[in-house]
Amino acid sequence: MKPVVFIGAGPGAADLITLRGAQRLASAEVVLFDALTDPALRELAPQARWIDVGKRGFCNSTGQLAINALLVRHARSGRAVVRLKGGDPSVFGRLEEELQALAAAGVGAEVVPGVTAAIAAAAATQRPLTRRGTGRSVSLTTAMTQSGDLQATRTADTEVFYMAGRQLAALGRRLQQAAWPADTPVLVVSRAGWPDQLQSDHRVGSLAEAALLHAGRPTVVTVGVGAAPLEQAPKRESATAPGLARREPRMQP
Amino acid sequence: MKPVVFIGAGPGAADLITLRGAQRLASAEVVLFDALTDPALRELAPQARWIDVGKRGFCNSTGQLAINALLVRHARSGRAVVRLKGGDPSVFGRLEEELQALAAAGVGAEVVPGVTAAIAAAAATQRPLTRRGTGRSVSLTTAMTQSGDLQATRTADTEVFYMAGRQLAALGRRLQQAAWPADTPVLVVSRAGWPDQLQSDHRVGSLAEAALLHAGRPTVVTVGVGAAPLEQAPKRESATAPGLARREPRMQP
Repeated sequence: MKPVVFIGAGPGAADLITLRGAQRLASAEVVLFDALTDPALRELAPQARWIDVGKRGFCNSTGQLAINALLVRHARSGRAVVRLKGGDPSVFGRLEEELQALAAAGVGAEVVPGVTAAIAAAAATQRPLTRRGTGRSVSLTTAMTQSGDLQATRTADTEVFYMAGRQLAALGRRLQQAAWPADTPVLVVSRAGWPDQLQSDHRVGSLAEAALLHAGRPTVVTVGVGAAPLEQAPKRESATAPGLARREPRMQP
Repeated sequence: MKPVVFIGAGPGAADLITLRGAQRLASAEVVLFDALTDPALRELAPQARWIDVGKRGFCNSTGQLAINALLVRHARSGRAVVRLKGGDPSVFGRLEEELQALAAAGVGAEVVPGVTAAIAAAAATQRPLTRRGTGRSVSLTTAMTQSGDLQATRTADTEVFYMAGRQLAALGRRLQQAAWPADTPVLVVSRAGWPDQLQSDHRVGSLAEAALLHAGRPTVVTVGVGAAPLEQAPKRESATAPGLARREPRMQP
């Protein structure tokens, strides 16, 4: 049996996958992919059978078991199997469960890393996550607990929240409860790295206002030092939507 | 003037750069690169003039000013300039200072993200940084302050320390002072993602023993939930050195 190759596709646009990831895809016979990954990635493996495991039926814990079973079944068939995940598999990618299922079945694995959403958002907005002197730590975290509760902390100079797009108002409240001052800068980026990326600047105390702009889109929320624009911002040559990039939303009267 | 393109080369091996990064390199006329990046990356831009700014003279703060000046000078000459950095530019890449220098000179910029060392180490060792239920946050941090002091914290379920390779014994002591139990798992990976990558498993209380194995090599130190091996480890098909991979070092008698 060939080892299953886990590949981080990066945050969106197909050209943010690594060369190694593209090479492994080119020799795949079966690709199990999530809904989040760019359809253009298919051009890197036109010879393969592409199976979408990101659809609704695979979203809950039963779905994870079904994905595990599919991985094992296709690997046992002797085919070259790729498991393609958005972002990086080691960061909120549920890699652990799939590696364990393969190990239990005696199937090997290789993991090809990718660009995770926090880093893609920082690049696309030109807001470095670390800053000299003031920003020595970055936390990547999810505000959602397994039970569906929302939690927030203040532990690093910069915190990036994954999977918080649906609860921006609640996140703002939790951040204040966690001792972030109300005027702390917050950068909200949805579909980071895609051509239709949107970004907007807020404060912890008024984060609720971001909800409408980013509704229904994969969103990362950067809080603290790394959210602030650079003091002398360079001229933008980015692909973000004109007029919306660097927009400062105001509350409706 | 063309915008300067900052590219994250990834952690080491040339094929861990993104497709977009490789494409931008292919049209570069001047490449300013750090010592850490893989010499094989030159094959992606044989037409360009390659300037090594990672040498000793560029390491201190005077060196950063010299790099800034070089970036501006080459951009002003009208050439297509790439600034190639190891890992990702937004994470401990001093991107902020170089963007500010370009902005002050009226030069635009584009940032192409890359795979940062913490993520490369997680992939190469098959130790996911997030774990279901127990590992909801990951902190990327540097133990070194600007003044050269060593600091450590306990703020996330998993913490990854950059640039701590030279002071592993001191880091272990600081981690215990920061309330990490002495038996907390620690994974030390040097030259993550390179063919000669080394990895070793330790505990916070005995981290000093890792110093000899990784001496003189770029090292990341993962502490906490994400450092632990998976309960059922898959068969290894990795490129790490046989016999050293997953080695449990012991103290000399």
